[in-house]
Amino acid sequence: MVASYRSIEWRDGVLRMLDQRRLPHELVYKDFTDCSEVAAAIRDMVIRGAPAIGVAAAYGLALASQGSTSTDPGSVYSEVKAAADVLQAARPTAVNLFWAIDRVLASASAYAQESAAALCQSVLDEAHAIAAEDVEANMRIGLNALPLIPDKATIIHHCNTGSLATMGYGTALGIIRTAHEHGKQLEVLVGETRPRLQGGQLTSWELKHLGVPLRVIVDGASGHFMRTERVDLCVVGADRVAANGDIANKIGTYNLALAAWAHGVPFYVAAPTTTFDMSLPTGDRIAIEERPAREITHVGDYRILPDDVSVANPAFDITPAKYITAIITERGIVCPPFEENLAALVKGDG
Amino acid sequence: MVASYRSIEWRDGVLRMLDQRRLPHELVYKDFTDCSEVAAAIRDMVIRGAPAIGVAAAYGLALASQGSTSTDPGSVYSEVKAAADVLQAARPTAVNLFWAIDRVLASASAYAQESAAALCQSVLDEAHAIAAEDVEANMRIGLNALPLIPDKATIIHHCNTGSLATMGYGTALGIIRTAHEHGKQLEVLVGETRPRLQGGQLTSWELKHLGVPLRVIVDGASGHFMRTERVDLCVVGADRVAANGDIANKIGTYNLALAAWAHGVPFYVAAPTTTFDMSLPTGDRIAIEERPAREITHVGDYRILPDDVSVANPAFDITPAKYITAIITERGIVCPPFEENLAALVKGDG
Repeated sequence: MVASYRSIEWRDGVLRMLDQRRLPHELVYKDFTDCSEVAAAIRDMVIRGAPAIGVAAAYGLALASQGSTSTDPGSVYSEVKAAADVLQAARPTAVNLFWAIDRVLASASAYAQESAAALCQSVLDEAHAIAAEDVEANMRIGLNALPLIPDKATIIHHCNTGSLATMGYGTALGIIRTAHEHGKQLEVLVGETRPRLQGGQLTSWELKHLGVPLRVIVDGASGHFMRTERVDLCVVGADRVAANGDIANKIGTYNLALAAWAHGVPFYVAAPTTTFDMSLPTGDRIAIEERPAREITHVGDYRILPDDVSVANPAFDITPAKYITAIITERGIVCPPFEENLAALVKGDG
Repeated sequence: MVASYRSIEWRDGVLRMLDQRRLPHELVYKDFTDCSEVAAAIRDMVIRGAPAIGVAAAYGLALASQGSTSTDPGSVYSEVKAAADVLQAARPTAVNLFWAIDRVLASASAYAQESAAALCQSVLDEAHAIAAEDVEANMRIGLNALPLIPDKATIIHHCNTGSLATMGYGTALGIIRTAHEHGKQLEVLVGETRPRLQGGQLTSWELKHLGVPLRVIVDGASGHFMRTERVDLCVVGADRVAANGDIANKIGTYNLALAAWAHGVPFYVAAPTTTFDMSLPTGDRIAIEERPAREITHVGDYRILPDDVSVANPAFDITPAKYITAIITERGIVCPPFEENLAALVKGDG
């Protein structure tokens, strides 16, 4: 079954995105023609998921270029560059955002001495290429992981890594989808993923569309299920992968990895190579975003906490490479030692 | 500062309990004169916390005895026994419920050949004794733990174990309170404790009353804070302690213990001996209550999950003794090997 929703779509000069804050209750699309509004949408999590925000940013730059009133390609390039600065400030942790922006800027800069029209076209072409490559990479990740997924597997998944978190198909959820479409019987224990409930609200909704059996659990219950039921594997996405295989991912990932480690349950990370940041030797220098307190103090408009209590709301955590069984990319499965094997993969001989 | 609220109070033949489902938004007391309504209040979590439900059940039996219209002590005893059966079915995991009921029945049975009035008095006396001993035990636990709590400590706490979870003072939170009242500077990272948010809603509220600095965190963030900040210790309560030191406690406790283990952070369990169940060699046979799906699908009246998705909602988990640094009781601190040392404590030579 093909999903009847699209996280991101480009339609005749307009960027259409599904407002994921309204899911699963309402399917509402928002149209964007202004790049700064795209940056706000990334910050406010209309769109989220590392690959998806990379694609959204690329299309944001396309909006910036086509919104320029100048016919001078140098001026248009400056406007695109200024828009890139705003987009880059939207969220700090997922590297795909910076990667996609850099790629579009590199392409555009080649046309900064040519014509404004050619520059605009190159920005849009690059955004389309990033979007298409993301879907392609996800599908390859799913196929590459197939031998790792036993039939009748029970899988724990954290956050949302599906069609919604990407241009389409999904990373960790793409692996589950591919295995399901290849006839494997699966059940997914869906970590609800506090505070924003991407697991409870988005992943459960996507799995229901796909027809994959699931049970939503609270994040703190993962160890209990590993202790009392058979859990075959955990699979999560990543917002950034450091050169040594440390990963940044949604808060709660590290606790899940520790529980998997204690139980000898394989812990897989699905990550397109766009998520790699080989400039960082370890995960220690990955910036961890602190999100607004309201994400913890409220659910919807309902205040759950007492007035005037402090909260700490890091949106991501670092899972050290030690706890990761394998990183599954579109170019193949990377096993430890990660430092060596990730470097080889990036160099093209992995 | 003495708390200006009471979880349980006996007033002239009426059992008054604070409706903890309405906290922190409203301070609403409910009066009970009927034992079956007390059983429903335990089941529906008007009152919760292992020690508190033990006390509530004892007073429930006092209501049953005084509600009898018979003057025959044997008949009154039968009515109390029938009420005990209803109370015992209210919740399966915390052993204090069964312990308190057994203790009251044992006392009452001695009067089943005497007079109805004497039997009623003995039931009420026993309930008062259980309540008074609970406060006394909690205060001793706090004092016994004092040498384990460094000054300027950062402490992770899970669920609620304060005045609200007991007759007064608290177990794990009682330890924090005692250390605070002895002038130690503390900060508590309060795990919000999904699904029912006892940490976010009750513990943060109690700590605010006590003047102890705190930050509420999502349950999945505990490992992140151990990795990125100094965490000195974790302390939790227990709903049942098996003979080998395995404990049942609120879901999420086990994941917290695994994170503490991975980081070498001491993991303490505060447990009055009323929580011991020496009849169970290990935690494996402790019944884990499955609570209603609605606790996960909704927050308040607000449905957070898509329609028709399955959830699994175990209310407790088992933390194996291996991961526990020490169990702090009113009779002293018990260290590993727990099987030997718990047995010695119970025999009175510990």
